[in-house]
Amino acid sequence: MAEATAEYKVIGTRPIRPDGADKVTGRAIYGGDMRLTGMLHGKVLRSPHAHARIKSIDTSKAEALPGVKAVMTVKDLPKAEARMAAAGEMPINVKYLSNNVMADEKVLYKGHAVAAVAATNVHIAEEALALIEVDYEVLPPVLHVLDAMKADAPLLHEDLKTTELGQPTETVSNIASHIQFKLGDPEAGFKEADVIVERELTTETVHQGYIEPHNATALWNEDGHLSIWTSTQGAFVVQKQTSEVLEIPVSQVTVTPCEIGGGFGGKIPVYLEPVAAVLSKKTGRPVKLIMSRTDEFEATGPTPASHMKIKMGAKNDGTIVAAEATLMFEAGAFPGSPVGAGCMCLYAPYAIPNMQVDGYDVVVNKPKTTAYRAPGAPNAAFASETVIDELAEKLGMDPLEIRRINGAKEGDRRVDGPTFPRIGYMETVHAALEHEHYATPLTGPNRGRGVASGFWFNVGFMSSVVINVNSDGTVNLVEGSTDIGGTRASIAMQAAETLGIPYADVRPSVVSTDAVGYTDVTGGSRTTFATGYAAHDAALDVMAQMKQRAAGRWTSDETPVGPEDVTYADGVFACTKDAEQKLTFKEVAALMPRTGGPITGRATVQPRGVGGAFATHIVDVEVDPDTGKVTILRYTATQDVGTAIHPSYVEGQIQGGVVQGIGWALNEEFVYRDDGSMVNSSFLDYRMPTSLDLPMIDTVLVEVPNPGHPYGVRGVGEVPIVPPLAAIANAISRATGKRMTDLPMSPGYVLSKTQNGD
Amino acid sequence: MAEATAEYKVIGTRPIRPDGADKVTGRAIYGGDMRLTGMLHGKVLRSPHAHARIKSIDTSKAEALPGVKAVMTVKDLPKAEARMAAAGEMPINVKYLSNNVMADEKVLYKGHAVAAVAATNVHIAEEALALIEVDYEVLPPVLHVLDAMKADAPLLHEDLKTTELGQPTETVSNIASHIQFKLGDPEAGFKEADVIVERELTTETVHQGYIEPHNATALWNEDGHLSIWTSTQGAFVVQKQTSEVLEIPVSQVTVTPCEIGGGFGGKIPVYLEPVAAVLSKKTGRPVKLIMSRTDEFEATGPTPASHMKIKMGAKNDGTIVAAEATLMFEAGAFPGSPVGAGCMCLYAPYAIPNMQVDGYDVVVNKPKTTAYRAPGAPNAAFASETVIDELAEKLGMDPLEIRRINGAKEGDRRVDGPTFPRIGYMETVHAALEHEHYATPLTGPNRGRGVASGFWFNVGFMSSVVINVNSDGTVNLVEGSTDIGGTRASIAMQAAETLGIPYADVRPSVVSTDAVGYTDVTGGSRTTFATGYAAHDAALDVMAQMKQRAAGRWTSDETPVGPEDVTYADGVFACTKDAEQKLTFKEVAALMPRTGGPITGRATVQPRGVGGAFATHIVDVEVDPDTGKVTILRYTATQDVGTAIHPSYVEGQIQGGVVQGIGWALNEEFVYRDDGSMVNSSFLDYRMPTSLDLPMIDTVLVEVPNPGHPYGVRGVGEVPIVPPLAAIANAISRATGKRMTDLPMSPGYVLSKTQNGD
Repeated sequence: MAEATAEYKVIGTRPIRPDGADKVTGRAIYGGDMRLTGMLHGKVLRSPHAHARIKSIDTSKAEALPGVKAVMTVKDLPKAEARMAAAGEMPINVKYLSNNVMADEKVLYKGHAVAAVAATNVHIAEEALALIEVDYEVLPPVLHVLDAMKADAPLLHEDLKTTELGQPTETVSNIASHIQFKLGDPEAGFKEADVIVERELTTETVHQGYIEPHNATALWNEDGHLSIWTSTQGAFVVQKQTSEVLEIPVSQVTVTPCEIGGGFGGKIPVYLEPVAAVLSKKTGRPVKLIMSRTDEFEATGPTPASHMKIKMGAKNDGTIVAAEATLMFEAGAFPGSPVGAGCMCLYAPYAIPNMQVDGYDVVVNKPKTTAYRAPGAPNAAFASETVIDELAEKLGMDPLEIRRINGAKEGDRRVDGPTFPRIGYMETVHAALEHEHYATPLTGPNRGRGVASGFWFNVGFMSSVVINVNSDGTVNLVEGSTDIGGTRASIAMQAAETLGIPYADVRPSVVSTDAVGYTDVTGGSRTTFATGYAAHDAALDVMAQMKQRAAGRWTSDETPVGPEDVTYADGVFACTKDAEQKLTFKEVAALMPRTGGPITGRATVQPRGVGGAFATHIVDVEVDPDTGKVTILRYTATQDVGTAIHPSYVEGQIQGGVVQGIGWALNEEFVYRDDGSMVNSSFLDYRMPTSLDLPMIDTVLVEVPNPGHPYGVRGVGEVPIVPPLAAIANAISRATGKRMTDLPMSPGYVLSKTQNGD
Repeated sequence: MAEATAEYKVIGTRPIRPDGADKVTGRAIYGGDMRLTGMLHGKVLRSPHAHARIKSIDTSKAEALPGVKAVMTVKDLPKAEARMAAAGEMPINVKYLSNNVMADEKVLYKGHAVAAVAATNVHIAEEALALIEVDYEVLPPVLHVLDAMKADAPLLHEDLKTTELGQPTETVSNIASHIQFKLGDPEAGFKEADVIVERELTTETVHQGYIEPHNATALWNEDGHLSIWTSTQGAFVVQKQTSEVLEIPVSQVTVTPCEIGGGFGGKIPVYLEPVAAVLSKKTGRPVKLIMSRTDEFEATGPTPASHMKIKMGAKNDGTIVAAEATLMFEAGAFPGSPVGAGCMCLYAPYAIPNMQVDGYDVVVNKPKTTAYRAPGAPNAAFASETVIDELAEKLGMDPLEIRRINGAKEGDRRVDGPTFPRIGYMETVHAALEHEHYATPLTGPNRGRGVASGFWFNVGFMSSVVINVNSDGTVNLVEGSTDIGGTRASIAMQAAETLGIPYADVRPSVVSTDAVGYTDVTGGSRTTFATGYAAHDAALDVMAQMKQRAAGRWTSDETPVGPEDVTYADGVFACTKDAEQKLTFKEVAALMPRTGGPITGRATVQPRGVGGAFATHIVDVEVDPDTGKVTILRYTATQDVGTAIHPSYVEGQIQGGVVQGIGWALNEEFVYRDDGSMVNSSFLDYRMPTSLDLPMIDTVLVEVPNPGHPYGVRGVGEVPIVPPLAAIANAISRATGKRMTDLPMSPGYVLSKTQNGD
């Protein structure tokens, strides 16, 4: 457990979060809490079919219902053209984005939005939905990636031409793109191998499962300006995507991020915001929309099901000499699965001389997938990390030992090109090897211990911070990063550290897009890294001005004092030219009205030295031989967290990621009928882990500071979900002697494997 | 009418205000519109006596009333000590401030707050007030300044020792202070005079008469942080004063300024905010308080009644050689009338070699006065400008001619010390002399034309602005100045001018004290001047960064380009080293993600080059000889406005100031019974001018740019109220042949003067 070090006064401590009191007393305003004068309530009509052509929509009966103020369909949106735009450095296809917000011509999944109603209350709105008459021509759906890749598969998009290795082709198919990364000569590599393992593995569609449903309240004002209040990971992304869908300038859209009840990547794209906006424009009143849990499952962005082929070869000494993989990911109804990230992360923990990774992004009649915590990486690691485990088993080698032998270090190259800067992967392997958990024998029948590693590259993107100094020597920090996991604290702590003042003296505020500089999404494990970086830089801007103020106070005709003559340590400014002259931070703040006025520091960053994150997990399981039910006995997660700014929140991120990984491994899946309708779209039937299913998740914070950040921060939030799927599969394999190749490893599956598996 | 000049593209135009749509559609959130979950409603119990000792307060019956959640008295406030603090550079005595918020030991005016209740609705709160039992020992009140100055007058504060010419004394009296300014040798000066006029003049207490009553909503959160929403001229003043009264750090108080329905100086000090805060702390719930109109009249801060003695002497050629004045101002219940400002402004329009001005700040049993548009100056100008008019009359000289002869110019000295920089007083006199109004003879019986001049020094204080650049080349401007008279526009225009972009591309936001640097009150005619100055400087910070970005794009190994090699004109950046290289403002904005990230500009200012404002008004009146009723026939106001940023709003300020001056001159007054109770505390009985009472007010914008501001801005909002009182008095004198020496010049007064006056 990291604590404040001699090096740092604030970083490494565990203060309470600024939003804590509001959140435990119910004062915090989430999107669903929005109430505006004259507000209407909206509801979305969704397709009952997974694949159908819309022949006509008759909204007249709905419009005639008393209390209904407006009905909208895709006709109320600008006709979306196929053009690329950027939102938070991530390219988006505006036509696909728009058509996902409201179906145009075809519905592509059950739950696809078809129309929407604004009414004086939700009951009338719901009643009105039933009065909208949609004439569908039902088409055969295609629900699985392998089926969708077949030449005779039903086509979702009749104009979707496959992009082959980055080049456009004339081939129309459900394969949106095929990518490939290659390093060395895999064919030659496999010839050197003494042992080769080949496997096909699958994962099912799973959902982020955040507590709070999607919501949006919009007011399209008389002056043409659109205001949106929503629970989002990125107010500026909502601003950008809404402006793209509605074809209005970004500056005509103000987004106020409300508090957010979980996101995990699922609260980045817009679903309801453009709908609320159009309904507000049509009615002249604010309109609020909130999804039901069924809407969440059927019509937001889960993470893809995948089909993966893996082949790895090693020498008898354990050296991995070659690796191949083919990842086929379901994008959902529109192109854009995280298969690219999966390809990049799959073998990243290992220095393998010869590698080839192919990825396929395939559309199917399911909701469009979106980001979910290290998107693509858990799927990929489930495949690669179980095959490495099998290699180790075949070589009679400790599974951490094979990782120790092959682990990636500074200077090693990833399959997608970049070489690693200083990383801490080996430190996580050593931390696992040396952990009391790993040293403690696991005894008893039907028990097994598994390990697995994982990588996530993290992102930097852009952030802006302003720091204003108060007359009492405290400061206010203005930021644009939605706080999901305690980033108000972790960013304020970096400002406090830089300013040499207590954490409690920094008051952070997350404000609307009108009141802060552009700031990318809270995602990609970037917020404590990049917005913290901006806070550090803005604090430096404050310090430079304070030194100038102190110098001005101390300057005289005889002795001119410049800011370069002012030192600052332990909260005290001192003059190198006159040892008598000292001013505390609070004194310089109090003197502002007499030294030139207020002090405001500002910084914007786009840091390029993002530090990748590695984790190695150990898990002990027990498998009930009669039912196949798996119990997690013990779980230890080691992770290179760079510098742990707020260790409790780092531990929380790790524990949360592991828990989500456990759910994904053991129980979670979207279950579909053949017609493409989901049968378990509620929390009663979609089985997420509860606290009763889980042991304490032990965490080991390995701190290898990231040289690309002033305080050594690495993103920590995503990588913890990468190893659990494989670690648990490996543990079950060790317990049962059978390799697990398909998720979820629910009791029925495990039982069938132990009875029939290889 | 000023229009955009060749010099400026945006400044001088008349775009619509950003808050216009919200204000005409009712969307704008004023303080009274605040609704928070679980909110309680508060009411204040006020003293029925103008002067009494509080022997005891029994709140038990009120507390027992169902629905009452808390009752507070002064016991719930920290015991206020007599100590000075600063709020917006204005010194405040915290004990007096606190005791005005809630009476301690004594009540000093009818309406003085004694207790407060928070209940589930306003009706219960009101009912509870009646259940609070206060035992008063009633004391004799003193209601007029001359009475209060008498040696045997009842004392309001038994410990108030007179400050005599800046020195503390042991004299206990109602005279809080006596100040004196002196220049030259008045006694010798009067010996040179051929004509001397001496007069005693009086004005009555008048109110700002803003439409929206005072309000405050407070939430004292579980974590100790206090949030306040209020209609105020200065969020940071409310923050500071609330923190002083409650003895908590300023950083524990967040103030969100709501839209404000008029202030005119009256919405600067706190009345309800600390009460709402304490009631919230006691109940754990948000509490809202709103004043009634009677509360407004009886318990906020009107401008003082005054008694003034004036003596001026001139030679036959019109040269004024000496002037004396004694101004006695009623401070109300606590020290602090604007008599100092009155003394400073009184003779400021004139270069008089010998002057002495004495001022007395006197407490009486009326509500504590506060600022009202050029506070102190209209009273003073009423005295001096009618006496100058009489001098001119006695000399047989045109009243503008005597001003032309004696008018102050650059380098002339004010009685209080400073010498004038470039000012435009003479230009206003010439503008009046040359105006068609002045050239047109006024004919008909009972008619008269009056002129008068006025001065207001304006203030600078401190402001902070941040400008964030959007990807579409528009910008968001963050400011802390409450917008009362269109300053969102006038500040955004200065940013647009500096950035070389259209006005519509700047979106200003007025935010809470958490989200912007320290910014002083919207008052003292400082906002367009000082916050506009900060907007200009923040825009320069943006431009410097944009030049750096452009330079970075154009730099190559062969040709390094620095920001100094980049020019900017007409919205286009160009490279002095390569004529081919050009980028528009919008292009540089769009390139931000590829040139280093977002751009944020920041500036804080404390400008010292505030430009004083002068005005000269012409008014024609007709007096009904039977009733004494005065009708304003025509009114022309000339004013040196520096540079008119938004001419319509400058004209609006002038027209508004004149209208308030007309009301003050002709009708407005607080009428008291001998016991100190006000008899006309409603808008039915307190007679403000309506549109039916008024002609069109013609304005002449004289633009003498202020050298102390990058765009030459001078404050324009206050000085228009300075001349009307005297101008109308002079017009009535010319119409009736009788000198008017007392305000208001209501029909009865005018009739009595014309029948009995001198």
